[in-house]
Amino acid sequence: METITTVAQLRHALAQTRKAGKRVGFVPTMGYLHDGHLALVEASRARSDLTVVSIFVNPTQFGANEDLSNYPRDFLRDEALCRYAGVAIVFAPEAQEVYPATFETFVEPGELAKPLCGAFRLGHFRGVATVVCKLFNIVQPDLAFFGLKDFQQCAVVRRMSVDLNLPIEIVAVPTVREPDGLAMSSRNRYLSGEERRRALAISHGLFDAADKFRSGERDVENLIAIAKEQLNTVDRLQYLELVDGHTLKPAESPVRRTAALCVAAYVGSTRLIDNVMLSLPALERDRSPGD
Amino acid sequence: METITTVAQLRHALAQTRKAGKRVGFVPTMGYLHDGHLALVEASRARSDLTVVSIFVNPTQFGANEDLSNYPRDFLRDEALCRYAGVAIVFAPEAQEVYPATFETFVEPGELAKPLCGAFRLGHFRGVATVVCKLFNIVQPDLAFFGLKDFQQCAVVRRMSVDLNLPIEIVAVPTVREPDGLAMSSRNRYLSGEERRRALAISHGLFDAADKFRSGERDVENLIAIAKEQLNTVDRLQYLELVDGHTLKPAESPVRRTAALCVAAYVGSTRLIDNVMLSLPALERDRSPGD
Repeated sequence: METITTVAQLRHALAQTRKAGKRVGFVPTMGYLHDGHLALVEASRARSDLTVVSIFVNPTQFGANEDLSNYPRDFLRDEALCRYAGVAIVFAPEAQEVYPATFETFVEPGELAKPLCGAFRLGHFRGVATVVCKLFNIVQPDLAFFGLKDFQQCAVVRRMSVDLNLPIEIVAVPTVREPDGLAMSSRNRYLSGEERRRALAISHGLFDAADKFRSGERDVENLIAIAKEQLNTVDRLQYLELVDGHTLKPAESPVRRTAALCVAAYVGSTRLIDNVMLSLPALERDRSPGD
Repeated sequence: METITTVAQLRHALAQTRKAGKRVGFVPTMGYLHDGHLALVEASRARSDLTVVSIFVNPTQFGANEDLSNYPRDFLRDEALCRYAGVAIVFAPEAQEVYPATFETFVEPGELAKPLCGAFRLGHFRGVATVVCKLFNIVQPDLAFFGLKDFQQCAVVRRMSVDLNLPIEIVAVPTVREPDGLAMSSRNRYLSGEERRRALAISHGLFDAADKFRSGERDVENLIAIAKEQLNTVDRLQYLELVDGHTLKPAESPVRRTAALCVAAYVGSTRLIDNVMLSLPALERDRSPGD
């Protein structure tokens, strides 16, 4: 495994791979890797000849009051995990390599970036779309892998990739969870033992709603209410919404298209997000375009 | 020569070229080709193995009150000119091929897009940056060629390409002029005979200032005043500015770095732009970074 810190070196390292017609898989991360990231690497290795993981805590996706400066970092551990997972290249640039002083062009996503996290983290998805576009152009992968825990991010990145005609297949990989249900996240390390226990309400609320959905509940208000019952142990619920799985607009009741139940909540001072997809059995599905 | 109208067909046609390691040159145009465009094709042919010309009147770079619907078009003539000029592929997509109904992601340029045309054509450079980014990702050229008549466009596109890490060399090609000095433009065809004569004031004003500059005039106000003297025959002067050649911010007096004298003016109802570069002799040049 090679660790590379500059764009020029990475392009040089990948030039031969590309010439040989090998498929490059790409897993962009902000480091502090966990099993969720490693599932992305595994998915990439299954479909590519060579996997590149980027480790870059992207400043443009953090708001002024967010946790950029104390975002958890452990590069040596990340490097070891990548090596063990069969990654070919770790790309770990400094901030000024990605954003030199003259940088001023942003990729601005549209409607998909407005609800859910987009309504609370102003500019977040602009930062995500911009850095992912840049990394895509740097790595020029055939495939790129994103975790469904960041469901809206997957939607924004896929739309960006289609809208800007990037010749890259975006693969969304199911959320990896702790045995008790908590979605894996680098931010989980902020949680105290007591907060960790209370954070379980998030996934358990979502699972309860998903169970009821599987039993036939199709009413949007009811599904949200079921999840909300559990969520009384979090310190602040930022949003709990059932949205259309494609447009991310509020799901219509009764649910007739794939929907996503999405939540953002603070436990202590840690902001956690999670979601479950509510996929209809084939026979029940609305035949509208886009579903 | 091949004419291609879909992204998929173009990718297919270029896949073999790329595999063979051939250099692809790209000339994006809005059609209604003139000798300025053909100079771009010539420049591309000199440096590439294969030249792609796109012909696409890009709706997102026209303002609500601008001339999108009656922008001049003559596809058969354009095709013949390209064939004669040695173009390998003409890419001429319909608007919905480039902007399907779901399109919503834009490339937003920064400071370079704010002065000059950017101050009068709101959203224009956002449209330019977006379509050029898309076309770059569709064609994936090694080199792309732009005319210096659209000096600010060259700057915005080059910055976009660097900022988004597109692996493409941007080549700016000098403005091609009619024998009497008028800069070639598809919009010249809107001019009546009388307007055509009055439009000459634009280039002649710029040439006068450039002459004085070559004779040693370095005062910004004086250089602008010299150009302005000629410009009394236009119907409305939109801007006449001397800007730094790299930052596009107002040039400092006396001029010590490469500067561009830029003008936009209406003759009748036709908006024309032009510029001259004021390049300092090497010995006189300020050694500031960026020049």
